[in-house]
Amino acid sequence: MTSFGNEPLFLGIDGGGSKCRAVLYRKDSGIIGEGLAGPANPVQGLERAQDAVLACASAALSDAGLSQSQLGHLIVGAGLAGVNAPRTRAAMLSWQHPFAQFYLTTDLHIASLGAHDGTDGAVIITGTGSSGFSQCAGQQRFLGGHGFPLGDKAGGAWLGLAAVQAALLALDNLGPATSLSQAVLAKTHSQDSTALMDQFCGQPSAPYGQLAALVFDEAAKGDAVAKAIVADGAGYLSNMVLQLTELGPIKVAFIGGLGGIWQPWLSDAAKARITPALQGPEVGAVIYAQQRYTGEHAP
Amino acid sequence: MTSFGNEPLFLGIDGGGSKCRAVLYRKDSGIIGEGLAGPANPVQGLERAQDAVLACASAALSDAGLSQSQLGHLIVGAGLAGVNAPRTRAAMLSWQHPFAQFYLTTDLHIASLGAHDGTDGAVIITGTGSSGFSQCAGQQRFLGGHGFPLGDKAGGAWLGLAAVQAALLALDNLGPATSLSQAVLAKTHSQDSTALMDQFCGQPSAPYGQLAALVFDEAAKGDAVAKAIVADGAGYLSNMVLQLTELGPIKVAFIGGLGGIWQPWLSDAAKARITPALQGPEVGAVIYAQQRYTGEHAP
Repeated sequence: MTSFGNEPLFLGIDGGGSKCRAVLYRKDSGIIGEGLAGPANPVQGLERAQDAVLACASAALSDAGLSQSQLGHLIVGAGLAGVNAPRTRAAMLSWQHPFAQFYLTTDLHIASLGAHDGTDGAVIITGTGSSGFSQCAGQQRFLGGHGFPLGDKAGGAWLGLAAVQAALLALDNLGPATSLSQAVLAKTHSQDSTALMDQFCGQPSAPYGQLAALVFDEAAKGDAVAKAIVADGAGYLSNMVLQLTELGPIKVAFIGGLGGIWQPWLSDAAKARITPALQGPEVGAVIYAQQRYTGEHAP
Repeated sequence: MTSFGNEPLFLGIDGGGSKCRAVLYRKDSGIIGEGLAGPANPVQGLERAQDAVLACASAALSDAGLSQSQLGHLIVGAGLAGVNAPRTRAAMLSWQHPFAQFYLTTDLHIASLGAHDGTDGAVIITGTGSSGFSQCAGQQRFLGGHGFPLGDKAGGAWLGLAAVQAALLALDNLGPATSLSQAVLAKTHSQDSTALMDQFCGQPSAPYGQLAALVFDEAAKGDAVAKAIVADGAGYLSNMVLQLTELGPIKVAFIGGLGGIWQPWLSDAAKARITPALQGPEVGAVIYAQQRYTGEHAP
């Protein structure tokens, strides 16, 4: 086992509703270890989130060939979903963690810090859900991310729900029957409304998200219903780009599983504000830990 | 206790996801007893639905001053939600019930039989959900009713979800801020997005349905967002009226909690096909039992 004595070791954690990723970072060597664990969304379970943070910290130490006794030396930066709600934030901060430091912020903040390499900027995350964040001159703005089916417009689940709704309308002859409905039936191996309904009724967002790519495919082929759905989502995201960049002369990085596929559909004004993400959210979490640590230990 | 000897006693049952109603009917006296019990939707629990049917049958006998021993003389007509799915229908029909006869059909069919006093016709039910049914010359058609949030367009939950979505967009400055959003916040005692989200996230259809009346109120006052939501729902229902009446020269009765409030918003073509409901669904269930019994005992 290697040891670094008293040198601060930074651990960046990106915790979300499906998994938790950690990277271990040493000033001179860069990333020296990585860890992966289960869901770390404190809203869905505080203890489970704390366990996941611990598990992926341990995994990262082990991956780096370091002893678990180094846990107490780690300067942790964690970006977790849901901690912009004051109650959740307070609950997570009252945790008796084993680390030297535990700096907590939102998953959106570390995503933005990573995407813009620690500088001011904004991100729009579109995966199963969707949300936006910007930080400029000490101000932060959160947009969207209100959860499925309330919000998260232009996320994969929103696209999939719109596709299933369109297919059901078409099957009832109450909406246009286009190739989108046929594609939904084929993809879900459904023969009719009842089969489609049985498959999706009461389901959470993930199964709907599986249909997102199909909506883009059909829109690209010119299907009128799919194009209308995509245009609605793109309009929402284009507005979000403009709202986020109202804070100052910043750029927006599109990240998440659908980040790339949305970009060509945005308005020209929105496209002009877009920039590629430089680093991942877990590196953003390391940057956050370093910023907080440096702030507290300034010479 | 009164006794009717061997005279057939008809019991009509209207079973849904929130309650089960029964009426006891005697040829010469009309309705002689009523019963009410819990949910009787076999999709949500087969045994619970059977228990509810039994409980409201017992209650109706008791209300009529009849002995429970009369259960075995009852000719029951039951209209239950979900039994147009073959599997649910078969499961419910395999029940070892204590009645003389147990004739099973859908809640929509008995609603239509009641509304049109046993003759051909159609119904559109709009309460928390929405669905349509028509019967003409031996043919039946079912439309909509695919469940929240997949389908049930123009139902109360659909209206409420649209209102909450509009309020969240307005609060994020990503959609027009009209008096609808203010009304949603006031009605739900929410100060902001987070409070609204906390209140509705992961909720089933019923809490959304509580906002339906507010959407109509705002639309009537001229709120542009509320008017667009109501126009979308009214367009859907107007199409449904035309689809249902394609089966023949029949009329459509609008029933359910929102039935009356939707009618003025429909297209003129749809309005021309509307007729008031003559009887309730539980009377439709009695009519169904009589039609089946007469069919089997024709001289």
